[in-house]
Amino acid sequence: MFSHKKELQFHAKPERPDPVYAKKLQEILGGQFGEISVAMQYLFQGWNARGDEKYKDLIMDTGAEEMGHVEMIATMIARLLDDAPINEQEKAAEDPVIGSIMGGMNPHHAIVSGLGAMPENSTGVPWNAGYIVASGNMLADFRANLNAESQGRLQVARLYEITDDPGVKDMLSFLLARDTMHQNQWIAAIKELEEKRGTTVPSTVPSDWEATDFSYSLMNFSEGEESKKGSWASGKAPDGNGEFDYVKKPKAHGGKQELKPAPSYVHGTPPLD
Amino acid sequence: MFSHKKELQFHAKPERPDPVYAKKLQEILGGQFGEISVAMQYLFQGWNARGDEKYKDLIMDTGAEEMGHVEMIATMIARLLDDAPINEQEKAAEDPVIGSIMGGMNPHHAIVSGLGAMPENSTGVPWNAGYIVASGNMLADFRANLNAESQGRLQVARLYEITDDPGVKDMLSFLLARDTMHQNQWIAAIKELEEKRGTTVPSTVPSDWEATDFSYSLMNFSEGEESKKGSWASGKAPDGNGEFDYVKKPKAHGGKQELKPAPSYVHGTPPLD
Amino acid sequence: MFSHKKELQFHAKPERPDPVYAKKLQEILGGQFGEISVAMQYLFQGWNARGDEKYKDLIMDTGAEEMGHVEMIATMIARLLDDAPINEQEKAAEDPVIGSIMGGMNPHHAIVSGLGAMPENSTGVPWNAGYIVASGNMLADFRANLNAESQGRLQVARLYEITDDPGVKDMLSFLLARDTMHQNQWIAAIKELEEKRGTTVPSTVPSDWEATDFSYSLMNFSEGEESKKGSWASGKAPDGNGEFDYVKKPKAHGGKQELKPAPSYVHGTPPLD
Amino acid sequence: MFSHKKELQFHAKPERPDPVYAKKLQEILGGQFGEISVAMQYLFQGWNARGDEKYKDLIMDTGAEEMGHVEMIATMIARLLDDAPINEQEKAAEDPVIGSIMGGMNPHHAIVSGLGAMPENSTGVPWNAGYIVASGNMLADFRANLNAESQGRLQVARLYEITDDPGVKDMLSFLLARDTMHQNQWIAAIKELEEKRGTTVPSTVPSDWEATDFSYSLMNFSEGEESKKGSWASGKAPDGNGEFDYVKKPKAHGGKQELKPAPSYVHGTPPLD
Amino acid sequence: MFSHKKELQFHAKPERPDPVYAKKLQEILGGQFGEISVAMQYLFQGWNARGDEKYKDLIMDTGAEEMGHVEMIATMIARLLDDAPINEQEKAAEDPVIGSIMGGMNPHHAIVSGLGAMPENSTGVPWNAGYIVASGNMLADFRANLNAESQGRLQVARLYEITDDPGVKDMLSFLLARDTMHQNQWIAAIKELEEKRGTTVPSTVPSDWEATDFSYSLMNFSEGEESKKGSWASGKAPDGNGEFDYVKKPKAHGGKQELKPAPSYVHGTPPLD
Amino acid sequence: MFSHKKELQFHAKPERPDPVYAKKLQEILGGQFGEISVAMQYLFQGWNARGDEKYKDLIMDTGAEEMGHVEMIATMIARLLDDAPINEQEKAAEDPVIGSIMGGMNPHHAIVSGLGAMPENSTGVPWNAGYIVASGNMLADFRANLNAESQGRLQVARLYEITDDPGVKDMLSFLLARDTMHQNQWIAAIKELEEKRGTTVPSTVPSDWEATDFSYSLMNFSEGEESKKGSWASGKAPDGNGEFDYVKKPKAHGGKQELKPAPSYVHGTPPLD
Repeated sequence: MFSHKKELQFHAKPERPDPVYAKKLQEILGGQFGEISVAMQYLFQGWNARGDEKYKDLIMDTGAEEMGHVEMIATMIARLLDDAPINEQEKAAEDPVIGSIMGGMNPHHAIVSGLGAMPENSTGVPWNAGYIVASGNMLADFRANLNAESQGRLQVARLYEITDDPGVKDMLSFLLARDTMHQNQWIAAIKELEEKRGTTVPSTVPSDWEATDFSYSLMNFSEGEESKKGSWASGKAPDGNGEFDYVKKPKAHGGKQELKPAPSYVHGTPPLD
Repeated sequence: MFSHKKELQFHAKPERPDPVYAKKLQEILGGQFGEISVAMQYLFQGWNARGDEKYKDLIMDTGAEEMGHVEMIATMIARLLDDAPINEQEKAAEDPVIGSIMGGMNPHHAIVSGLGAMPENSTGVPWNAGYIVASGNMLADFRANLNAESQGRLQVARLYEITDDPGVKDMLSFLLARDTMHQNQWIAAIKELEEKRGTTVPSTVPSDWEATDFSYSLMNFSEGEESKKGSWASGKAPDGNGEFDYVKKPKAHGGKQELKPAPSYVHGTPPLD
Repeated sequence: MFSHKKELQFHAKPERPDPVYAKKLQEILGGQFGEISVAMQYLFQGWNARGDEKYKDLIMDTGAEEMGHVEMIATMIARLLDDAPINEQEKAAEDPVIGSIMGGMNPHHAIVSGLGAMPENSTGVPWNAGYIVASGNMLADFRANLNAESQGRLQVARLYEITDDPGVKDMLSFLLARDTMHQNQWIAAIKELEEKRGTTVPSTVPSDWEATDFSYSLMNFSEGEESKKGSWASGKAPDGNGEFDYVKKPKAHGGKQELKPAPSYVHGTPPLD
Repeated sequence: MFSHKKELQFHAKPERPDPVYAKKLQEILGGQFGEISVAMQYLFQGWNARGDEKYKDLIMDTGAEEMGHVEMIATMIARLLDDAPINEQEKAAEDPVIGSIMGGMNPHHAIVSGLGAMPENSTGVPWNAGYIVASGNMLADFRANLNAESQGRLQVARLYEITDDPGVKDMLSFLLARDTMHQNQWIAAIKELEEKRGTTVPSTVPSDWEATDFSYSLMNFSEGEESKKGSWASGKAPDGNGEFDYVKKPKAHGGKQELKPAPSYVHGTPPLD
Repeated sequence: MFSHKKELQFHAKPERPDPVYAKKLQEILGGQFGEISVAMQYLFQGWNARGDEKYKDLIMDTGAEEMGHVEMIATMIARLLDDAPINEQEKAAEDPVIGSIMGGMNPHHAIVSGLGAMPENSTGVPWNAGYIVASGNMLADFRANLNAESQGRLQVARLYEITDDPGVKDMLSFLLARDTMHQNQWIAAIKELEEKRGTTVPSTVPSDWEATDFSYSLMNFSEGEESKKGSWASGKAPDGNGEFDYVKKPKAHGGKQELKPAPSYVHGTPPLD
Repeated sequence: MFSHKKELQFHAKPERPDPVYAKKLQEILGGQFGEISVAMQYLFQGWNARGDEKYKDLIMDTGAEEMGHVEMIATMIARLLDDAPINEQEKAAEDPVIGSIMGGMNPHHAIVSGLGAMPENSTGVPWNAGYIVASGNMLADFRANLNAESQGRLQVARLYEITDDPGVKDMLSFLLARDTMHQNQWIAAIKELEEKRGTTVPSTVPSDWEATDFSYSLMNFSEGEESKKGSWASGKAPDGNGEFDYVKKPKAHGGKQELKPAPSYVHGTPPLD
């Protein structure tokens, strides 16, 4: 059960309107690694968690927090849209700066939401749940989370680069900090799980299920051998169970890719040769 | 530039037809973490790589290999569809097993592809590029890769559980092995990058961009304090730059979430109170 | 800012597993009018609200409640999946009931989420934000909300019809009740707004913007005149500003649909006639 | 069965080209509440209608009309694209107005359709059928229709604000008028149905299916009690069957959200605590 | 402008209910090559046609007809859903045939549309406009149309194979016939255009735009030389402007795929080697 | 199995940065008829091919080549993004040319990919597999291929028109040439198949399945008889099996579109008339 508090977790006040930046900021609201993604990802992971209260509570703490981040960014976007020159078409014909703002805005901000945030990314594509991950395996999912917080913080840093509004930068400084925390927390949780259960997900696969001859070989499918120089091509593998090796010319073990002729009821082209 | 060899990388021959299983196997072909996803993810990462030939070659080696995995699974699906009872409607009315197979198949296998694999997941949703990640930051992307290989191997293990066809299990044993390798290789590459550049992505954010007061606090947004017991709530954070702390009652720092009244040109409901 | 309480708003305990029903229940979690839709719709409306605190608070009250409904249904789905016969392929070959359950399940419940809820509808299509509405005009949006609660309660009623599990019915009885409340509340709010500002959205369009000759005519574009009998074809229109009339043979006022020839730089087929 | 007349229902001739506006106009062609949406929504409602010829004919009249609106807007978009400066890249480098037009256009208008309308919204997202509603319950669907016409007219009004082309305004004046009619007709039809069958959809749910203790309570899930002041928090509810009340501190009735441990065959992380 | 006639273009009456087949029939209603696709494709081509009335009229004739096909199939689906055992869960537990029907249906037919057709394909994915083609070049588009009618008739033939209901077969026999006509008509129209303007689309590319050294070479990127035996590997090319040749070992003309180092403001991983 | 060569198939070096053009070029990378589409389409056709090695090898040759085209265009996009003015917001406020470039870019190029190509089209919509065709019928699929190469070359020609960068034009000249080849090869292959098996797809439908009375009639559903003048309205049809005729007033053969009343368990509006 959720309850809402009217105050924002952190400041979300720009110094001045900037509808073109509002469009860009949509990325961290409704993009692949925006706040809707992390909020929904954590909540579904939490709801689907089976056992392990300590982890489940961590996930739900973070999921509920991220809902508050969606709120902050939605607020910032709406405020950046104040006084957007959306109906100054006459001036735009003469003043290229106004024209460029009107052309560079997300049209949805003018036509669909009426100066409000949209649940979509910076190119106007609606958020969809195909972005999120909740597999029921905690180590797998914490890796998804670490990735999400890494991609998210990277995008925040890029958005920080491309604004000079101190109010926007203030909010972004908070998001940078929380993403630092979240990266750290998932790294800590991953370490716990790996130490107890091993690094390969899932750790529960019996060894006789696996064609172990192929479990530690780097196969050279891209001409050139630069990749041979890395720590992944020789020496002990991180899982401690094997030695990496490098296969210069990977073999085909599987025979020719051929299928039986089509039966007549699928109405393929009848045999020709 | 790519070239194709007609032999498969590994065996993909089921012992008997199983169109219901063919539907399920689509998940690791065209699902969120199917082989199309990893192939495209690695190829875009490689093409967008700027510098660092050793890493780029590793990425391209793996991307080209994954194209071959798409091929193996597509082949397996087509073979599982041989002799599917798609036009035995008369028998189905009497024999519930046939009816159940016809109802449990992906209709696309009969109607659209004519007993071939589809570029879609196990519920029939077409693959889309919103699944993939190529950010230009290698540490971020290698974390995405480690996640993808973890989710992928987990799904392969679940698919292994739910078949008893030795030919299918044989192919899955190879995929389990390759996913073991790929998890190991990304762990090794991540370790190299973290050791050189730090664990927080991106490592290039100046500290004065960040509201560092909030960089190491676990905030308790989900009632109950089980999460306080983890390694993420106290002690040195993994990045070595701060100490975790636990915030029992997170504060709202941002003031009430309020916007200015709407201008008349957005045609909101006129003020009422 | 949001906080989460671990207890559910209402019971979500089925009496027995039913993975086929779990698939169907996904509709009211992640479908067009599922709980994710209403939760996100209300939250975006609230965040984008400009002025009118009374309405905004109502919206946020309801939005936060709906997040709790997502949680209840996600929990119910996970519990319906307990003991699903996902790896009993040998029995399935002989027992058509087991085969029919395995074929009728959502494969994601077995392969992707590991017996957890998915953020998708009953056919396995991921939820997307193209479903939701937050226009900045409250009367328009309350109509969207009334529609959403009407469609939602209709789907709940249909799902009630097709289960005989008392635990599932218990949860659905609560959702039926809350949807009754939510339909009533939006009707009440719509009535307030219509009384103050008129029934036509937006009420702020100056009359000289509108081709008022066409504002009250029912045009007969489908052969047969049954529609002439309704209250929409004659008499005073609900907005009080006009009289309905019925146009038996609608005219074309716009001239032939013709475009200029294509310029050469679009490389159309060169003129032929 | 449908037949087509070559004349347009109303004028669709701009006074001058405006490719940036053409991009925006796509919203009411192929957006969530564009003309494709209402046309398809009404047609599917009509085709699926069971009984009640009067309503079905009304729906089909309107659906066939909306197909003609798609045509008008498609025509307008194509004409706004005449003489778009799509291949004047040399001038653009010097003249920021031309550059701004080229940057502000929908690239599909130049590259994909060759100066024609696209079946997509103002940000270039293809129309999809997840937007439409046809539930088989007429009251529910007429509410969907009233919403669609409200959102649609709102968007038309906003588009009217942001053009000064008299030809475009002429066409929009017609759409404003038709949306006035369509809002009025659905209000009239809703009133008829509500008077005969009650306001709650569906009206056929037996009262013992519903947890009626919860059917008239506004629950305060967002801190602050502004919402208590509305007509939805006390007094008789619009359906005439209950009294609204206000629940200041909503209770959790459902016990802790907990699931059974995962069975080994889903390969979750093995129990850790 | 469109008008609608209440009679269907052809019979659409099944002899008996068949909800599992109704699910499959959705493919030719709302699938990639279903009737919605061809209707919308032709209408957009017609609306965007610039000049050439003869072709435009042909396109609009066919587009309006296809709207009537959508109607026929929607009607057939609704009728196949009559008496579907959607609320016979008790019987289903004992009777595997009923269970198999309930599991094999599209859940939307029961829960969302209330026994009506859905605007989606046979796996429940909503129709989207990314399927259609209207490029402004008639030869290109007629090829798209010939393809669409070929894929469509193929799917109809497969659906004919998998039903034994004479009423369904009757409707499909009409669709087979109309698709025969439509394939023939587009072949005839293509022939006209090719004879006048050449076979290569677009025919208006000046020869000095093209790297003509590469215009007639089959490049052997897939090991094995079977493809060398075809009429595409030697002899005069169909456009009459060149001779096919076969390149056994295709060369790379483009230098190594390398990019400049990333600038610091994109926050990639800092250089490592 | 695939292997990768580091050299590009052809030059992909622009003379100067052009981030606005980079956005447009995305269309032929990740659009409906971009290189990802043709690569995936051919590969799936090849993997699903049953028999006919000569054709399968042709398909795989071309599919593998197209993977190399994805690579070339991805490279070109990344190079066009070098030195994009993404963080020059201060200058942009004064210099409308810079503002127009920043507004006209795809924000993903700055925020998401870090100056790399995205797997999406020119409006930022992710590529999806709903674009591709692999039906198991070769004649049908070769028509899909001819269409894809026609649409693709048309888009390349339009992109050639709207750049004046000699390096970009150089790459496009190669794509124009390869699309000439690919159109020619599919025309040649289609001719072979049509000569052997007839022009109507599928050629295997028994004549008694088809309502042949309707197989050669052009039906006049769009007022006006211009279409009667074409080669598709009289004379021998291309398949050689019938004579075209023109139906001035098409009849409705199917009776009124009516459905049975809804059963109570779908909770429609109860009967009203």
